[in-house]
Amino acid sequence: MATGIPDQALQIRSLVRKSGQLELSLASVPVPSPATDEVVVRVEASPINPSDLGLLLGAADMNSARQSGTPENPIVTASIPEELLKGMAGRLEQSMPVGNEGAGIVVRAGSSRESQALLGKVVAVFGGAMYTQYRCVKAGQCLALPEGTTPAEGASCFVNPLTSLGMVETMRREGHTALVHTAAASNLGQMLNRICLKDNVGLVNIVRTREQAELLRELGARHVCNTSAPTFSMDLIDALVATGATLAFDATGGGTLAGQILNGMEAALTRAATEYSRYGSATHKQVYIYGALDPSPIMLNRKFGFAWGVGGWLLWPFLQKIGPAAAQQLRERVVAELKTTFASHYTKEISLADALRLDEIAMYGKRATGAKYLINPNKGFDRWPNEVKKTVP
Amino acid sequence: MATGIPDQALQIRSLVRKSGQLELSLASVPVPSPATDEVVVRVEASPINPSDLGLLLGAADMNSARQSGTPENPIVTASIPEELLKGMAGRLEQSMPVGNEGAGIVVRAGSSRESQALLGKVVAVFGGAMYTQYRCVKAGQCLALPEGTTPAEGASCFVNPLTSLGMVETMRREGHTALVHTAAASNLGQMLNRICLKDNVGLVNIVRTREQAELLRELGARHVCNTSAPTFSMDLIDALVATGATLAFDATGGGTLAGQILNGMEAALTRAATEYSRYGSATHKQVYIYGALDPSPIMLNRKFGFAWGVGGWLLWPFLQKIGPAAAQQLRERVVAELKTTFASHYTKEISLADALRLDEIAMYGKRATGAKYLINPNKGFDRWPNEVKKTVP
Repeated sequence: MATGIPDQALQIRSLVRKSGQLELSLASVPVPSPATDEVVVRVEASPINPSDLGLLLGAADMNSARQSGTPENPIVTASIPEELLKGMAGRLEQSMPVGNEGAGIVVRAGSSRESQALLGKVVAVFGGAMYTQYRCVKAGQCLALPEGTTPAEGASCFVNPLTSLGMVETMRREGHTALVHTAAASNLGQMLNRICLKDNVGLVNIVRTREQAELLRELGARHVCNTSAPTFSMDLIDALVATGATLAFDATGGGTLAGQILNGMEAALTRAATEYSRYGSATHKQVYIYGALDPSPIMLNRKFGFAWGVGGWLLWPFLQKIGPAAAQQLRERVVAELKTTFASHYTKEISLADALRLDEIAMYGKRATGAKYLINPNKGFDRWPNEVKKTVP
Repeated sequence: MATGIPDQALQIRSLVRKSGQLELSLASVPVPSPATDEVVVRVEASPINPSDLGLLLGAADMNSARQSGTPENPIVTASIPEELLKGMAGRLEQSMPVGNEGAGIVVRAGSSRESQALLGKVVAVFGGAMYTQYRCVKAGQCLALPEGTTPAEGASCFVNPLTSLGMVETMRREGHTALVHTAAASNLGQMLNRICLKDNVGLVNIVRTREQAELLRELGARHVCNTSAPTFSMDLIDALVATGATLAFDATGGGTLAGQILNGMEAALTRAATEYSRYGSATHKQVYIYGALDPSPIMLNRKFGFAWGVGGWLLWPFLQKIGPAAAQQLRERVVAELKTTFASHYTKEISLADALRLDEIAMYGKRATGAKYLINPNKGFDRWPNEVKKTVP
């Protein structure tokens, strides 16, 4: 029986008031007793992904953010611009837990064999509410990590690995043979680059700076196009000709880039065309938008005929579409290559209270490539005696 | 044996010079002798569809158009803006015939039973090069029209009827239950309205003027939204709530309308939502762009989550996708309802030479709703003696 587990523990909460005020705080919540098929995970690592920021910061203007409360119990308030508030109608006045994924140690387990088998193990969980010290989940939701894996190594088992694998899988299922990726120097982008190198899939990496381009080339990327280079348009078409990519995944989701990629694909396809068609090339060109780094409108300057599509792409609907067996195969690959292909790198490890400091929010809230934070909800909480990870074998 | 058929006949040609000059002219081409499985059709009616204008006018600035030649043998020249010229690389210096579809009388037939059976019949043809006095095609390409159908009535059997039927068919195949249509007062829009009324399919008709809205309401349309009305945004959402439409077909293909429709669909879906999702509603919302009436960029002001798509839609790839049996069913419905559901209306009937007059080009080149032209390539050519339609039974 685990001891040293408190009755109450901390959890980050995000609340949007009817008045348009965002309120971030630490709630003290009871540590639950697991049901038969459940386990309680002491969360020790949970990344701040762009997909978490949407829920955490709720479209608030963080320039208006103010700090109150105490260092141990900080409160952050900020204003949400009125025109964005109506998009939040569904969450008004609800104090919401945050954090899609994370990893930790199973410190309590229900009586089922499956639950008991996880006791003391390091597991990764995609369960929401992971910015929490103790999280109770179904045993079946846990991905048991191999011996010798730390929670920090297993913190990002789901969102980035399955998203990047999902991109390659989508490419195969929709009949394309190579990929374009924007925000390519991100953790996700580097992961996709490693998958494509390993699987011998052509990948056009689009980045915004020379430093990012150099980083990717050092990581073995074969085609890197820098939007800030004067030669970008031609570089892009050359890379599209070389790879034959007709599918792109775009994290920016705003501005002219998606349209430019489609126009580049069309130019690459017609470079080889022998016959004129006023409807453009017959080859389908697709851009999937999977992020919203750029909140400005998507502008498609259409010179790419009629065989094209732009659309939203999200991991979970994709996994539902391919079904549980195929999704399980992807998960198994992640575990098998967790320290190589799917390794994540973090700028900084912070506590729950740190995550509600204005200076830290200013850093991780930038959604900047190469500024990835890891929350350790139990950082600094070594004061409980007989800590379970020392008592379980 | 048909007599009175000339050896040479006229055909409209469109030529784009390397210099960026568009040149429209009437070519004199030999009237072919049909092979065994072919027939020669005396074309008497061929519509000017938006899809024909792209090939005919080739992105030229028609404000720069000049007339030369003679009234019987007119020549029109105009400049193509340099930035648009590279899109024409595949057709430079090729004199191209124009005209997707039309109808006429079979005046010569090859020896096959199928060909012979068509002699003297009014047939509709989708064959290209229909702005021609005598067009030789395979008998299998002809759609024989019922007794008592005139070429003018059968001129538009393909593009508009199959496109509007294809929209409803796409809706059914992709799991939607109602439709949105822009440019809804057009010939195509009126046709779609008749199909939806007949088939009891919800249809949101989007028009640009009060007159167009009234016209559609007189035609029985249940949901008409006028973009120039101050209440447009709310009218659109109300109509989307009432119909449950999550699929739109947009002929404009530029500007903010496609995005506004997606935002309207999202607002309609979330109006009924009980739970907040930061990714927006899970229901897929789709806009297909099937025209390019507005050449400005498509601007998607994305407040519609991640379950969405915008893409090109063209009739012929769609027909290929559904296969010959399903396509044949659509064609049979068109013939059965040609004078009712699929009736077309034209502003004016003109000759081939008229079609190359600057004042007429200014009218039909506007692509304006309610200004639909019909070319009769044999208008004014009654001088040949023993005209075949008088000699065949």
